[in-house]
Amino acid sequence: MTDTAAHSVATEVEQWLARFEQALTEGDSAGSAELFGDESFWRDLVSFTWNLKTVEGPDEIRDMLEHTLGHTRPRGWRTTEPPAAADGVTEAWIEFETEVGRGHGHLRLKDGKAWTLLTALDELKGHEQPAGPMRPKGIEHGANPDRETWLERRRREAEELGHTTQPEVVIVGGGQGGIALGARLRQLGVPTIIVERNERPGDSWRKRYKSLCLHDPVWYDHLPYIKFPEHWPVFSPKDKIGDWLEMYTRVMELNYWSSTTAKSARYDQQAGEWVVVVERDGADITLRPGQLVLAMGMSGKPNVPEIPGADVFTGDQHHSSQHPGPDRYSGKKAVVVGSNNSAHDICAALWEGGADVTMVQRSSTHIVRSDTLMDVGLSALYSEQAVADGVTTEKADMIFASLPYRIMHEFQIPLYDEMRERDADFYERLEKAGFELDWGEDGSGLFMKYLRRGSGYYIDVGACELVAGGDVKLQSGAVDHLTEDAVVMADGTELPADLVVYATGYNSMNGWAADLISQEVADKVGKVWGHGSDTAKDPGPWEGEQRNMWKPTQQQALWFHGGNLHQSRHYSLYLALQLKARAEGIDTPVYGLQEVHHVS
Amino acid sequence: MTDTAAHSVATEVEQWLARFEQALTEGDSAGSAELFGDESFWRDLVSFTWNLKTVEGPDEIRDMLEHTLGHTRPRGWRTTEPPAAADGVTEAWIEFETEVGRGHGHLRLKDGKAWTLLTALDELKGHEQPAGPMRPKGIEHGANPDRETWLERRRREAEELGHTTQPEVVIVGGGQGGIALGARLRQLGVPTIIVERNERPGDSWRKRYKSLCLHDPVWYDHLPYIKFPEHWPVFSPKDKIGDWLEMYTRVMELNYWSSTTAKSARYDQQAGEWVVVVERDGADITLRPGQLVLAMGMSGKPNVPEIPGADVFTGDQHHSSQHPGPDRYSGKKAVVVGSNNSAHDICAALWEGGADVTMVQRSSTHIVRSDTLMDVGLSALYSEQAVADGVTTEKADMIFASLPYRIMHEFQIPLYDEMRERDADFYERLEKAGFELDWGEDGSGLFMKYLRRGSGYYIDVGACELVAGGDVKLQSGAVDHLTEDAVVMADGTELPADLVVYATGYNSMNGWAADLISQEVADKVGKVWGHGSDTAKDPGPWEGEQRNMWKPTQQQALWFHGGNLHQSRHYSLYLALQLKARAEGIDTPVYGLQEVHHVS
Repeated sequence: MTDTAAHSVATEVEQWLARFEQALTEGDSAGSAELFGDESFWRDLVSFTWNLKTVEGPDEIRDMLEHTLGHTRPRGWRTTEPPAAADGVTEAWIEFETEVGRGHGHLRLKDGKAWTLLTALDELKGHEQPAGPMRPKGIEHGANPDRETWLERRRREAEELGHTTQPEVVIVGGGQGGIALGARLRQLGVPTIIVERNERPGDSWRKRYKSLCLHDPVWYDHLPYIKFPEHWPVFSPKDKIGDWLEMYTRVMELNYWSSTTAKSARYDQQAGEWVVVVERDGADITLRPGQLVLAMGMSGKPNVPEIPGADVFTGDQHHSSQHPGPDRYSGKKAVVVGSNNSAHDICAALWEGGADVTMVQRSSTHIVRSDTLMDVGLSALYSEQAVADGVTTEKADMIFASLPYRIMHEFQIPLYDEMRERDADFYERLEKAGFELDWGEDGSGLFMKYLRRGSGYYIDVGACELVAGGDVKLQSGAVDHLTEDAVVMADGTELPADLVVYATGYNSMNGWAADLISQEVADKVGKVWGHGSDTAKDPGPWEGEQRNMWKPTQQQALWFHGGNLHQSRHYSLYLALQLKARAEGIDTPVYGLQEVHHVS
Repeated sequence: MTDTAAHSVATEVEQWLARFEQALTEGDSAGSAELFGDESFWRDLVSFTWNLKTVEGPDEIRDMLEHTLGHTRPRGWRTTEPPAAADGVTEAWIEFETEVGRGHGHLRLKDGKAWTLLTALDELKGHEQPAGPMRPKGIEHGANPDRETWLERRRREAEELGHTTQPEVVIVGGGQGGIALGARLRQLGVPTIIVERNERPGDSWRKRYKSLCLHDPVWYDHLPYIKFPEHWPVFSPKDKIGDWLEMYTRVMELNYWSSTTAKSARYDQQAGEWVVVVERDGADITLRPGQLVLAMGMSGKPNVPEIPGADVFTGDQHHSSQHPGPDRYSGKKAVVVGSNNSAHDICAALWEGGADVTMVQRSSTHIVRSDTLMDVGLSALYSEQAVADGVTTEKADMIFASLPYRIMHEFQIPLYDEMRERDADFYERLEKAGFELDWGEDGSGLFMKYLRRGSGYYIDVGACELVAGGDVKLQSGAVDHLTEDAVVMADGTELPADLVVYATGYNSMNGWAADLISQEVADKVGKVWGHGSDTAKDPGPWEGEQRNMWKPTQQQALWFHGGNLHQSRHYSLYLALQLKARAEGIDTPVYGLQEVHHVS
C-alpha cells in the first residue's frame, strides 16, 4: 500500500471503531448492529457472551447486544497495528476492554460495514497471569522464620489437595487437552487435579502403534507457555511428544494424578459441587470440585462395529487405538477395516513389518498428501515462513478463529482445488487402484471434515503409494461377517486373516459422560463436536460453533475439552477463563446457551 | 540520531569494514593491524584462533593475523543492523565468514580506528545445526521395511554407546555446564556421554541447602535452545531449577549416565584417545573418547580448612556444599565460618530455623543488595526491560563478551559507585555492626570478583539485616582451633557450637584433573579460572582470558567447562564447535595456546 492508501484505510477503521464505541457506550444495540453488513458475523469468545458464540447478521447481533451490553460495558476499542486492505476487504487487529476483562480481536470491513468481528477475552482484571514483568520473584527477600521453600509448598499442596482441601476443577483425562488446560488453570491460580488412568503423562501417545507421528506440523502443535525448540522435528514421533508432555507436566507444576481411574461422578445440585469418585493406588478417593471437565479425547472412545462371527474368529482382533504395531505380525495375514488416517498408518506399518495386508474401504475417503497440505493448506498460518513473516502461533490461532464456521469452507475450497490439481497424477493412480476418493461434500477438504465430523480423511505420508501399487491390497465394500480365520465381505469375497484391526473411528464424547456420570446427563448435553453443517455425521440444524466444546453445556458445571494440539492450546485459554471466573465468583451470564438437537 | 548522523555513522563503519576486508584479503597483516587504535583489543572466540584469545594493540593483532590469516581466509564483512554512535564511540554488529565457518561479532570504532573487535564463530560450514528451516522432518515419508522409529533409534543408541560404539566426547559432570554442553553437542551430531554421580539431572542443585535460590535472575540463566517460560520466577528455587534440568536432559535426548562415577582417566597418546574408567550399576566400564571435558563445577571441589581440634569436636561439622539445611538445628548453636554467599544464605536459614547463629568473618566481603544489583548492574543486558528493548539473551551475551577483560572493570566501577551511593544507609548499618566491607581492590565490584577469583561476595537477599541487627552474631578474625564443643578464635574468644559449617569456598578446578587423571596432568594444565588481574586469588601475569576455560589446555584433548548459567550457556557453543571440528577432522591450528604460570 502507498502511504496515502494506508492512511485512508486507517481512517476507515478508526471511524468505524469510533462509531462502534459510541453506539456501545450509549447502550444503543440497534445502532451498533447497523454498523454490520447484511451478511455479517460476530464471533465472541467469552468476552461478551460468557460463551463461544457466533451471531449472524444485524438482527442476531442486536439481540446479543441487548442481552449483554448492560453488564459487559465494552470500551477502549482501538487498533493494535496499522490495518491493511486487499480485494475490497479491510482487516484490523483490535483491542478493547469490558467491565471485568481485557480482550483483543480482529475486524474485517466491507463497504464501510463490518463483515466479520472476532472478540476474545484475554484476561480478567485483577486476575492477570503472573508472567513477564509480573512474574513471581521466586525468593522472598528478608528473613522469615515461617518461610516455606518452593519444594515444601509443592509437597504440601500435593499432600493436601484432594484430601484435606478440595480442587476447584477436576479434569478427567490427562492427554494433551487436560495438560494444556491444567497449565492454564495453574497459571490462573485455580486449584486443579488432572485424573489420568495411564502411568505417565504422554502415555496416551506412547501406547499407540509404534510408527505413529503427529500429522500436524510443529508450528501447529505448540502448547501454551513453552514452545517446542527450533530443532524440534516437523512431525513429532509419538514417543517424543510423549516425553515432551511428561516434561511439561512436571515443570508446569500440574497436580497430575496418574494411574488413577475416574469411576463415577454426580452433580450435587444442593451443594453446587461434583462428587467424583476416583481410584488411586487401589483406594477410592472422593473429590468434590466445583467444576468437572471431561478431556478424555475426541479420539478416545473407540467405535467398534458389531460384526457377526467376531466371537468365532481365532486370530487377533482389536480397535486401532489398541493396535500394538507390526512386530508380532510378520508373515501373517492382516485385514484392516477402515480407510482413514489410522487405517493407512497401520497398513503401512504392517506392510513394512512383513505382513500380508488388506485394507477394507467401506466408504469414500478424503486424501491429501502431507507435503501438499503443509504447502497449500497450512503454510500461510503455521510454517517456518509464517513465523518469519511475523505470524506467530498466537496470531495464527486468532486468524483461524476469526473465520466464522458458516463461511470457513469458502476459504478452504480454493485451497483444495489447488491441491487436487497439483497432485492430479497421484489421485489418478489411487483411483486406478480402485480407491474411492472424496473432497468433502462441498469440496472443502480436510479441516472442514475435521471440524464437522472429526473423521473421513488420511494425510498421506506414504501409505497411498502402497495402495496404488498393490502392495497393500484394497478391498471395497461392507464387511458381512467373520469366520474362524477370515473376513467375509458382503459380496462373498473371503479375506483370510490372522489379524483384524478395526480402524473404525470414535464415538461422540458425550459417551464419556454416559460412562462416568449417567446416560441421562449424556443425553441432556447431547452430541459433542460438529457445528450443524448438515453434512455426513454432522446433521443440522446450523449451530455455528462446535457443539459442547470449551463452553457451557446444558449440564451445570460440566465441560468438554479436547481436539488437536492447536485447539487444545487455543481454546484452553477461553475454557480456563470461564472456570477462573466461576472460581472467583464473577458473574457469568451465558448468552445463547446451545440447545440440544442430537443425543449422539 | 538524525538521519544524516545515522548515515555518516553507517558510512564510517562501512568504510572501515571495506578497508579491513581488503587488507585481510590481500593477506596484509600489518595493514589490517593499522586499522586498530594504539589502545585496542581483538577478542576472538574460535573463528580465527581456534582458541578464546584476546590480542591487544596493533603489534599483537598483526602477530595473530600473521599466524592465522593464511588458513582462515576471512571475508564477507558486513553490518547486520544500522550502527549507532554515542560519546565518541561507534558500535556495529557485524557478520563474516571464514574458510570453514560463519561468525558474527561486534565492533567499536574510536576516531576512525577499531577500539574493540569481537569475532565469534557461530557454525561450521557443512555442519550447521538442524534448526528452523533445517529442522528434521521427524517422519520419513514413504514405505520402508527397514524403518526404525524414533524410540527404537534412541534405545539402540543408548544400548550401543559406550559399549559397542565409543563416544567422541565424555563429559564428566552432569550439572548445568555438562548438560548445556551436551545439548550443543547433540545438536551438532557429536556422540557424547555425560557422566554424573548423582541419581538424577538437577541433583547437584537439589542436594544443597533447602533455602537456596539462584542469585542470578531468569534472563541471565536461560539454557541453550529452550528458554524458561514467561512465568518462570526471577530467582529459581533450587529444586525447581533441578526439575528443569532433569526435563531438559530428557527432551534434548542427552546420553546422561546418572549414578555413575568417573574413577580414572589417562590419555593414550598413541591411540589418540582417552581411557576413562567409570563405575555404573556396580560394574566398571571403560570408555575411549577422543575428547574429555571436565565439567564438575567451579563451585564443586570444596576447600575445607585444616583446623586443629576438628577431630575432637563432637558436634556436626561439614563444608557448606554438604550442609543439609536448618531442620535438625533448631535450638542449637551454629558457627558458620566464612562470610560470602553460602555463609550468608546458611546463616539466614539457620536463624529462620531457630538456631543460635554466629558468622565468622575472616576477611572483608563485597556485599550488594540483590534488587540494586539487578537494577544497576544487570538491567541493561538481562532484564524484562532489556528483552522489551530488543536485547535478547543471545545479544546480551555478545555485548558482555565484547568487553575485553583488560578494560571490563572500567565499565563496572561506575555501576558500583552508583550502588554504594544508593544503599549508603544499608552499608553504614553493616559497618556499624562490625562487618568489614570491600568493593574489590579497584572498586569494580561483583562481576570482576567472580571472574577473577570466583568468590569474595554476597548478593544480599535478606541476611545482611540479620547481621546488622545482631540476630546473626558476627565474629571477626581467624579461627585458631576447635574444642569438643566450641570454635576458638585467634584472640581467644570461644564460640560454643553444636554445628560448624565451613563456608570456605572451593579450590581450582584442575584439582579435578589431579583426582581423576594425575597430579602431573593437573600441574601441566595449571590453575583454572581467573585471568591474571594481579588481584587477590588471581595472580599475574596478565593472561587476558579465563585460564583453561572452554579452550585448549596444555594437555591434549582435555577441556574444562563450567561457570554460572550465563557462561555455561554462551561458552558451551564455542567449546562445542571446537569439539565438533576435531570430531570431523577439520584442521584446528591453535593460536596463542596459554602458558601455565600457576599450578593452583
